[in-house]
Amino acid sequence: MTERFYCGKLTEENIGEEVLLKGWVQKRRDLGGLIFIDLRDVSGLVQIVFNPSISPDALAKADSVRSEFVIEVTGKVVAREESTINDNMETGTLEVETKELSILNKSKTPPFTLEEESDITEEIRLKYRYLDLRRKPMQETFILRHQTTQAIRNFLNREDFLEMETPMLTKSTPEGARDYLVPSRVHPGEFYALPQSPQLFKQLIMMSGFEKYYQIARCFRDEDLRADRQPEFTQIDIETSFMSKEDIMEMIERMMKQVMKEVKGLDIPTPFPRMKYDEAMERYGSDKPDTRFCMELTNISEIVQNSGFKVFRGAVESGGKVSGLNVKGKASAYSRKNIDQLTDFVKIYGAKGLAWLKAEEDSLTGPISKFLSEEEAHGIKEAMNVENGDLLLFVADKTSVVYDSLGALRLKLGKELNLIDETKFNFLWVTDWPLLEYDEDLGRYFAAHHPFTMPSPGALEKFHDAPGEMKAEAYDLVLNGYELGGGSLRIHEPSMQEKMFEALGFTKEEANEQFGFLMEALQYGAPPHGGIALGFDRFIMLLAGRDNLRDTILFPKTASASDLLTDAPSEVDESQLKELKLKLSNREVK
Amino acid sequence: MTERFYCGKLTEENIGEEVLLKGWVQKRRDLGGLIFIDLRDVSGLVQIVFNPSISPDALAKADSVRSEFVIEVTGKVVAREESTINDNMETGTLEVETKELSILNKSKTPPFTLEEESDITEEIRLKYRYLDLRRKPMQETFILRHQTTQAIRNFLNREDFLEMETPMLTKSTPEGARDYLVPSRVHPGEFYALPQSPQLFKQLIMMSGFEKYYQIARCFRDEDLRADRQPEFTQIDIETSFMSKEDIMEMIERMMKQVMKEVKGLDIPTPFPRMKYDEAMERYGSDKPDTRFCMELTNISEIVQNSGFKVFRGAVESGGKVSGLNVKGKASAYSRKNIDQLTDFVKIYGAKGLAWLKAEEDSLTGPISKFLSEEEAHGIKEAMNVENGDLLLFVADKTSVVYDSLGALRLKLGKELNLIDETKFNFLWVTDWPLLEYDEDLGRYFAAHHPFTMPSPGALEKFHDAPGEMKAEAYDLVLNGYELGGGSLRIHEPSMQEKMFEALGFTKEEANEQFGFLMEALQYGAPPHGGIALGFDRFIMLLAGRDNLRDTILFPKTASASDLLTDAPSEVDESQLKELKLKLSNREVK
Repeated sequence: MTERFYCGKLTEENIGEEVLLKGWVQKRRDLGGLIFIDLRDVSGLVQIVFNPSISPDALAKADSVRSEFVIEVTGKVVAREESTINDNMETGTLEVETKELSILNKSKTPPFTLEEESDITEEIRLKYRYLDLRRKPMQETFILRHQTTQAIRNFLNREDFLEMETPMLTKSTPEGARDYLVPSRVHPGEFYALPQSPQLFKQLIMMSGFEKYYQIARCFRDEDLRADRQPEFTQIDIETSFMSKEDIMEMIERMMKQVMKEVKGLDIPTPFPRMKYDEAMERYGSDKPDTRFCMELTNISEIVQNSGFKVFRGAVESGGKVSGLNVKGKASAYSRKNIDQLTDFVKIYGAKGLAWLKAEEDSLTGPISKFLSEEEAHGIKEAMNVENGDLLLFVADKTSVVYDSLGALRLKLGKELNLIDETKFNFLWVTDWPLLEYDEDLGRYFAAHHPFTMPSPGALEKFHDAPGEMKAEAYDLVLNGYELGGGSLRIHEPSMQEKMFEALGFTKEEANEQFGFLMEALQYGAPPHGGIALGFDRFIMLLAGRDNLRDTILFPKTASASDLLTDAPSEVDESQLKELKLKLSNREVK
Repeated sequence: MTERFYCGKLTEENIGEEVLLKGWVQKRRDLGGLIFIDLRDVSGLVQIVFNPSISPDALAKADSVRSEFVIEVTGKVVAREESTINDNMETGTLEVETKELSILNKSKTPPFTLEEESDITEEIRLKYRYLDLRRKPMQETFILRHQTTQAIRNFLNREDFLEMETPMLTKSTPEGARDYLVPSRVHPGEFYALPQSPQLFKQLIMMSGFEKYYQIARCFRDEDLRADRQPEFTQIDIETSFMSKEDIMEMIERMMKQVMKEVKGLDIPTPFPRMKYDEAMERYGSDKPDTRFCMELTNISEIVQNSGFKVFRGAVESGGKVSGLNVKGKASAYSRKNIDQLTDFVKIYGAKGLAWLKAEEDSLTGPISKFLSEEEAHGIKEAMNVENGDLLLFVADKTSVVYDSLGALRLKLGKELNLIDETKFNFLWVTDWPLLEYDEDLGRYFAAHHPFTMPSPGALEKFHDAPGEMKAEAYDLVLNGYELGGGSLRIHEPSMQEKMFEALGFTKEEANEQFGFLMEALQYGAPPHGGIALGFDRFIMLLAGRDNLRDTILFPKTASASDLLTDAPSEVDESQLKELKLKLSNREVK
């Protein structure tokens, strides 16, 4: 039997060889009594030719072949004539003269053509996902995903990590995001929860004496979805005992360096830059700064604290701040109308307005300039490194609004003005995170990361006076303005964990009911431990240069958490609910 | 800083070196003013010594140390004196003279000692799983599991398989086992199902043009549990396009050969023996024969079809059969009382009784011997290869009962009589499976494997006359009497799939509602494809030489599907149910 070859892997070395090819009809052309087919398999394309002088039989069969038919051919690899060489095809100097053709399966005309890029709606693409996935960029993305998975595993295996599987049917805990619940049939009225992360299990693995654990783990959050969220997602989950924060960060740097080398052929510099959370907010208005471009926020609060411009002075006086962006050289590029649009944009983030100045002929112009003293104008020019032709944009508000609005505006302008070098992969550690976050609606503190995060040395002493100032032994890895993942050292002493639950407002009973098993486990020689979890789908999105998380997941869900291909979720038989002792409260009871 | 070493990896080459060790106190002994501690980490044990002449300070601290404390020590590796060498410890020729000791965490006295084997109840072991997992055999099992996972991946990666992730929140279909359901909050009254296997998704992956897929996939079945079942389990899931049944089986053989070599250091012969389903049932009374020992079933129906022994004759006349086991040389070992116990055993499997004969002094004795003609006795002796001293056991019944009861009896006797060579790994393919199975309770045929299994050539022609005789292009891989997994070619032609649904009693509407997406996908150029799924937990159980599936799963569930460590499943907040628009029908409505 003739040996099977892959279409895209044929080279001039195969010329003269008899090959067996199997794949899909990408395109068919009839020309001068011949039929030409671009045959596609997982490796790529090659042109096959049906010629009456070679096999009238194959030619006759080929006549019935249409796009996306599955065929098997045997034939001889030949060089194309000079004039018919196709530079756009990797195998474009070759073709296969077909001797035999079998049609393995037919195809209806696909609802869209499987070109590299297509402008069909995402809804159609998801409904016919198996067709969408046949397109080259999708094939490449999932091959990249496979390669990245293996590169990560290879690194961790070499470092003596053990890959371990944690349960999917776990206990529901009210902290964190909303759980997906799974009703128990054996214990009616009780539920499992799908894991939001294997956090507690990986800590228990450390307490079980396995020193280095990893898992490429499926996690679940029943939250309202945005473009970069999916109800089920994959994370690279890592935990180690006896390693310091530095050890863990350094190891992750080596892992990323190795992965970027293997997968993208890039040599990225290590160690990664580090920035404290407070500094990141102050300079970028973001806890995940995109450092591929500058245009940082400048805090001018001190300069304008007594300003004649009431908006500036007022913000500082009421405990907020004034920060600005210097849009270099764009004074004349932005009309008043353009700036109005930017003002509308920052309002989305709660800003009441956007003040602006233009640097022209060595002075600052614009509606607010008349309120600024010469000293203030000078101070601003110095602080913001102002040159003629620059556009300055300011938000004066409470601190969180200043950061949110200017952080978002910075990113918007960075994209609009093409300031971002898309070939860069800028990794960054953000460290020294707050331990707790205050929820104004609920009037209590929450764990900024999770309740098992180790407070920084001495932090717990601030517990009564300034809980918001407590810092955590936590670190986030940021890539190109995306949070790739976060980690921390964990609490390993039972008394500290108790204090932490207390700080979070748990009664002893509540802590015990939800986390009693953890409190107990900590009492039997829990080792010092810590780890990290990295969002794998998002990492692939960045590596593949895509901007939609759904393009990195084989069978993703829509924004309403539906699978348009299989039509999940769906109604189930009444008998299934009866077995679970459940009733639907939105339907009439039968 | 002193370099960290692993306890179990210290060798005589380290003598004289200063080392840093971190781990758990396995055991502490006080002797002649010294303290000896067996220190344990993930790599094993080493003895550390506290000596007042080396560090009175460390000795004083060591006095407070108890079992399972987590400590960090620095010290010098020295050779033990000849008389104190411990041959039971891998590092038994060495010890570490401790200079510094830090206690990293304390431990209460564990509820059981962490010896290699312990006789505590499984309930206690599961509740304190993190302690149970510290025991050496458990550590070894999960290291073996990790190694096996990587060996499988390495093989499949080299064969150009892509590792791909399929969804966990999928559509519920009534075929197969009972689904775990996940209520949707966004679509009240609708449910996802956790996958029983990624079967349809892996077929869709083939239709997406990825030619070779694998996944080490978590699967879920809400069934009543036995010792070798868990509500969530892991399977090695494999699917390929364009490969024949032979290609797939041969590849799996190479995979298993490679894995057994890497993980167990064993060279297992390939190709694996193959046996048709009908032959396996006839010779072993089982579709997963344990071929590590003989004692096969012998069908003597023809010999006794006209027998004076009514029970034999009657079974054959009513369409059943008579088969027997020859328990070689055990005639005198089994008293009448022993045989009564075996009779009780076969009754569990529906047999009405167990007939027996003993071969003594060239003739067959026993209560039924007087009913047998000389010709029959001769026939039996010949067919069953009878020698003096043999014990013959017979069941006469309908065929399924004969197989079930004698198959089980064969295994029981094999174990009791130590006929099984426990060092053997006997792989076996069972092929030519029935396509359909009749469910007597429901009065209809079911897919023996699943509704997507390709019928054998010509099988569908028997669809109206003899549906039970239709065979499938299916193959099971059996190891030492366990079903390791099963696979098949799949239906890739829409018309055949339609016929299959019809054979299974689906109306067009039912087929469409449940599998409409598959029927549609098949119309757009589905390639010929097939694959296999192997039970990974069970494979590890066999590789680790254990007999409880729970010992191969890090955090397993009990027979009532509970996690005794975290106490899942559990009740959830009323508010969670409200969001899902669910009510518990076994509680009063509030």
